[in-house]
Amino acid sequence: PPGRKVLIVYAHQEPKSLNGSLKSVAVEELSKQGCSVTVSDLYAMQFEPRATRNDIVGCLHNSEEFNYGVETWKAYKRGGLSSDLIEEQKKVQEADLLIFQFPLYWFSMPAIMKGWMDRVLVQGFAHEFPNCYDSGLLKNKLALFSFTTGGSREMYAKGGISGDIRYLLWPMQHGIMHFCGVKVLAPHICFAPEYVSEEKRKEMLTAWAQRLKTLWKEEPINCSPEWYFK
Amino acid sequence: PPGRKVLIVYAHQEPKSLNGSLKSVAVEELSKQGCSVTVSDLYAMQFEPRATRNDIVGCLHNSEEFNYGVETWKAYKRGGLSSDLIEEQKKVQEADLLIFQFPLYWFSMPAIMKGWMDRVLVQGFAHEFPNCYDSGLLKNKLALFSFTTGGSREMYAKGGISGDIRYLLWPMQHGIMHFCGVKVLAPHICFAPEYVSEEKRKEMLTAWAQRLKTLWKEEPINCSPEWYFK
Repeated sequence: PPGRKVLIVYAHQEPKSLNGSLKSVAVEELSKQGCSVTVSDLYAMQFEPRATRNDIVGCLHNSEEFNYGVETWKAYKRGGLSSDLIEEQKKVQEADLLIFQFPLYWFSMPAIMKGWMDRVLVQGFAHEFPNCYDSGLLKNKLALFSFTTGGSREMYAKGGISGDIRYLLWPMQHGIMHFCGVKVLAPHICFAPEYVSEEKRKEMLTAWAQRLKTLWKEEPINCSPEWYFK
Repeated sequence: PPGRKVLIVYAHQEPKSLNGSLKSVAVEELSKQGCSVTVSDLYAMQFEPRATRNDIVGCLHNSEEFNYGVETWKAYKRGGLSSDLIEEQKKVQEADLLIFQFPLYWFSMPAIMKGWMDRVLVQGFAHEFPNCYDSGLLKNKLALFSFTTGGSREMYAKGGISGDIRYLLWPMQHGIMHFCGVKVLAPHICFAPEYVSEEKRKEMLTAWAQRLKTLWKEEPINCSPEWYFK
């Protein structure tokens, strides 16, 4: 609906890829709805995935023994995080919905996107004990993981060789988003696009556009072990 | 035992950290046994986590549309991967045991280590359909995930707020190592070292050294859904 803000965190090297098209479809459809859409194109930004001392501007809280979690927390409090992190946090803060668009790499997100999680979702900004899970600091936001797989739907079925696809969503949806208080919409999964026809791939794009039309009416999943491992 | 080769892939910024000490304890104890131990100290190496075109030396197989998986596979076949990847693959090839030592970041490994998985375990080298899972190309090797957590053992209990710690091991142990044919030893987990006494932390180091003494007699876990979600 008009006025809603969406941040798409996008991790693919190739604009012509299906992931690139899925991203473009989302930008187009959500903009058409009157949403304001921002894209963090991680490879194009050459986003830094490594959590290092460079993320803190100025002096360290404890320069004797570097503790990344403590240092970024303290730096956040005094406005001393590196500018790329401040930039991303601003986008997250403004967003009503976060869409993560990526190819599944090794049952998880590509390292460049994991680095976005590791570095952007700093203590004090995204969570701060006891403000985690349902009272995480990013509550009232929604997240949606949209990804492509190498393996087929059959491999990722319950009892399939790779196990129920939901098993691998636990760390991403529960461990990261739910931990920060973000409510999680059902994932959007395109299975094995590299092994289907061009026509099938077009259908995947249409299905995504279609889903986005009624996305704001969706209820979040119940992000508890039952959803994943029942 | 004498002659066994171990690769420790280590991801912590601070040598004085508990992770740094756990790594050193492993080097010391395994060397004492006569093993030859190699360490990939990812932060010290400034290891590149991003999967990009830079990983391929020379011409691309398809320069019209960049596909990382296909390009690294083809490059591996013709010896055209970047030198940092060839170096890591050599270490993996020679190793009987891979130890991954890291602090848990967001229910998973830090991005710098995920990047190691994404970039080093190339198709053709680590797996190649139908050589995956029990017939993966790295069979006859062992892997062990050794990590520290922020959350307590209670939070990571079955029914705890963060769910059974085994839930989050699925993508790493099954999705990565088992997929490549590697057999997985029980993980080694130090819960919430930042919140315990110095004495308790010392006990954690002793316990690790102790376990390593009889490590080679351990049986791998049964890496199937039952182990994780029973």
